[in-house]
Amino acid sequence: MSENGALPLRGKVLTVDTMNANVKKVDYAVRGPIVQRAVQIEKELKEGVKKPFEEVIKANIGDAHAMGQRPITFFRQVMALCTYPQLLDDNKFPEDAKNRARRILQSCGGNSIGAYTTSQGIDCVRHDVANYIQRRDGGIPSDPDNIYLTTGASDGIVTILKLLTAGEGRTRTGVMISIPQYPLYSASIAELGAVQISYYLNEEKCWSLDISELQRALQAAREHCSPRVLCIINPGNPTGQVQSRQCIEDVIRFAAKENLFLMADEVYQDNVYAEGCEFHSFKKVLFEMGPEYSSKVELASFHSTSKCYMGECGFRGGYMEVINMDPGVKAQLTKLVSVRLCPPVPGQALMDLVVNSPQPGEPSYQTFMKERTAVLSALAEKAKLTEEILNTVPGISCNPVQGAMYSFPRITLPERAINEAKAKDQAPDMFYCMKLLEETGICLVPGSGFGQREGTYHFRMTILPPTEKLKIMLNKLKEFHQKFTQQYS
Amino acid sequence: MSENGALPLRGKVLTVDTMNANVKKVDYAVRGPIVQRAVQIEKELKEGVKKPFEEVIKANIGDAHAMGQRPITFFRQVMALCTYPQLLDDNKFPEDAKNRARRILQSCGGNSIGAYTTSQGIDCVRHDVANYIQRRDGGIPSDPDNIYLTTGASDGIVTILKLLTAGEGRTRTGVMISIPQYPLYSASIAELGAVQISYYLNEEKCWSLDISELQRALQAAREHCSPRVLCIINPGNPTGQVQSRQCIEDVIRFAAKENLFLMADEVYQDNVYAEGCEFHSFKKVLFEMGPEYSSKVELASFHSTSKCYMGECGFRGGYMEVINMDPGVKAQLTKLVSVRLCPPVPGQALMDLVVNSPQPGEPSYQTFMKERTAVLSALAEKAKLTEEILNTVPGISCNPVQGAMYSFPRITLPERAINEAKAKDQAPDMFYCMKLLEETGICLVPGSGFGQREGTYHFRMTILPPTEKLKIMLNKLKEFHQKFTQQYS
Ligand SMILES: Cc1ncc(COP(=O)(O)O)c(C=O)c1O
Ligand SMILES: Cc1ncc(COP(=O)(O)O)c(C=O)c1O
Repeated sequence: MSENGALPLRGKVLTVDTMNANVKKVDYAVRGPIVQRAVQIEKELKEGVKKPFEEVIKANIGDAHAMGQRPITFFRQVMALCTYPQLLDDNKFPEDAKNRARRILQSCGGNSIGAYTTSQGIDCVRHDVANYIQRRDGGIPSDPDNIYLTTGASDGIVTILKLLTAGEGRTRTGVMISIPQYPLYSASIAELGAVQISYYLNEEKCWSLDISELQRALQAAREHCSPRVLCIINPGNPTGQVQSRQCIEDVIRFAAKENLFLMADEVYQDNVYAEGCEFHSFKKVLFEMGPEYSSKVELASFHSTSKCYMGECGFRGGYMEVINMDPGVKAQLTKLVSVRLCPPVPGQALMDLVVNSPQPGEPSYQTFMKERTAVLSALAEKAKLTEEILNTVPGISCNPVQGAMYSFPRITLPERAINEAKAKDQAPDMFYCMKLLEETGICLVPGSGFGQREGTYHFRMTILPPTEKLKIMLNKLKEFHQKFTQQYS
Repeated sequence: MSENGALPLRGKVLTVDTMNANVKKVDYAVRGPIVQRAVQIEKELKEGVKKPFEEVIKANIGDAHAMGQRPITFFRQVMALCTYPQLLDDNKFPEDAKNRARRILQSCGGNSIGAYTTSQGIDCVRHDVANYIQRRDGGIPSDPDNIYLTTGASDGIVTILKLLTAGEGRTRTGVMISIPQYPLYSASIAELGAVQISYYLNEEKCWSLDISELQRALQAAREHCSPRVLCIINPGNPTGQVQSRQCIEDVIRFAAKENLFLMADEVYQDNVYAEGCEFHSFKKVLFEMGPEYSSKVELASFHSTSKCYMGECGFRGGYMEVINMDPGVKAQLTKLVSVRLCPPVPGQALMDLVVNSPQPGEPSYQTFMKERTAVLSALAEKAKLTEEILNTVPGISCNPVQGAMYSFPRITLPERAINEAKAKDQAPDMFYCMKLLEETGICLVPGSGFGQREGTYHFRMTILPPTEKLKIMLNKLKEFHQKFTQQYS
């Protein structure tokens, strides 16, 4: 206080000028201005404001339950039993669900999912994850000590990027990410002050990855930073491609040759639809390439409860497996994750069920398989439908949606629309998506939020709405695109 | 590859030498070497290794359920209903539980807690939190727009520290934290590369906070960094003190005068036991000091589902309220939290129940109150017991445990023990706690993990074990301390 007892005049301690500069550089399109406007429009609709549509259709985010997908019964039964163990006496619940719940509870402190767990995650869950990986990868061993449970895959990805970020100026860590990319990557790189190295996927070849493009991007980056990490999303978000075994082998060879730590984001591992496509885990391919690679290349791979057939995003469950990680670094990793105590235990339990689902002979097996298959076949059907309808629209061209949950079609925008957008200081595809939202209620994310080749325009649209709604949406979109093209031609 | 096709010899990409240097500086004692050894000993006991004790008693972490506390029935009923909504038809569940569940589900996408929520947290939960704060603070308004739901309080605390960290060298953000402190603070400061400014609590006056000590610490820090944040934990961890209203007023005045952003960690707000002590929220005191303060001082306060009477640590629920935050910074905060999509939805739902618990007239009210009161009175009793028994031991002196869940007694260690520890490159109280663990199975955290005045030694012990076990533990400890003192005298 000043002499006369009044507080000195002062501004805020924390302002946009004085805050963490890296945070300011973060962008996150999936929840950007389009989505904020969509939320507003929903409120307006509720308040009775008249619009040319009755509801907002959110095809902007890979959130299956929000689009009406039902949870897998078995998973929710076990979760309810874990939450309120009195239900273990209720004969409405099948025995296999009760057994899973008992096993999880026994490995919790005080037999409660309300206790903190070890920071790496519940022991028995990590064992189950390791067994799952081993089965999935045709017997290649997985060590529970290499498994870390996480708060969604997001958490694991950020944690590994954090460990890898070091150096200053030209020695600063460079992180190679695909363009288009899932914006968690660019956002985390910005937040950590690492250097983003963009490599472009090949739209002409179904969004596949060319090693020559990796090489180009790496070469260029070596001029100004120290490239140390190569991130791959397979199946791809936002592009929906599924990598061939050959491509994965080439990527691993490239990482080995160029001394890069590999991060494989495999959260869509069950979401493969196109004929001739198959999911190959980086871990499996790495080990099949022989000890020259499997004993050397450092790899972290990520999975989540949020995608695949379960779509349990809200539980924030996930795991990562680290391969060939230096033991000293692993100790640091374990220490680092312990600061936040532990991942959410309901998410850990749910991850356990995903990797330890009902087996033939168990009472819940048939229902489980029926539910799982229904979700995955509907997605496959919707993937095909989306591609087909979009490709009937002049000015829209869409690669096959081989996997994941998204189409990322290219749109041709009239020169006048591009100029009008630029005059408004908007990306042209943002201008397009904003108009689409205002006129039809369809909420998409513009391609500029994921990155794209200069002068090309796209949007990302999930294939998650129920088939009938998806059809309506695609046809509305078709109509809109034609009108838009006319209007600006 | 080299010319002949063999991979070049190379080391790992990520080593302790090349990793993020800030991460290496992180320390987190609550899950440090003592706890790792305790886990090992538990395994040894299971394998039949003979020890001078039958079980490890973990008094190292504030994890109520792990120590046998039962969850609040109502909370778990609602959570089970939210998880498996088929139970809404089950007449074993009371109507008020069903109503809470229905309300939460209605505000989830697709009526499922498996959907992502908005990044700031479910709207209706944030409203309930604001109402709770308003009731708690005698009607001082709280705005749901200022509430952010978090993944435990840990998440909120790290996020705010992240926003505040900026500058380089002498302009680098300095963060004032109490010593002893909860090590989340020092760990996050290290990870962010901010500067820790230690102010010492006054052990002689019941671990209270002296403004003169704040002033001393601030003055000294201004020589080498830019102090911008003052962190307070009230009720205190590890020290168990409860701040007086006067003290809080003085702290706020100090923050206003010195241009500091206030962070008030109030996760123990229901854990107040000592006569004459009462919880005062920083928010309330700030607003009662009049507009000169309430319109200016920037404050973030934190709460959690992990402590108080519920002890639901595993759900990772929490919230923060930000007051007088610059609107531009708030927009940045909202963007930042959106990168990780949303806090765990079960944790959000549980947070809702904590702030919107059964009311008089509702069917679950009586049971709820009975359970809540039972937990809090048992804690009060154990707080008293702990202080009393510890103070009967020559060489141990313990301040009253006014609140929270811990005692932090001072221990006198014989010169020879100190020397032996130093020869082993161990902190003397680590040496003491390690011996205690090996000989009695009691797992505590040494004072050095929280910080303490040079030349003093302490340990932190939770008051959470069931009363009978706590008594046994305290008596074992007494015996051990006497033996230890004799042995090294
Ligand atoms: C490729 C990819 N990785 C990671 C995530 C993060 O998912 P979560 O944190 O919910 O597991 C997503 C979510 O959409 C994704 O698409
Ligand atoms: C003072 C204090 N703050 C914050 C936390 C973090 O708790 P959580 O992240 O479980 O909410 C704790 C946990 O012990 C604590 O003692």
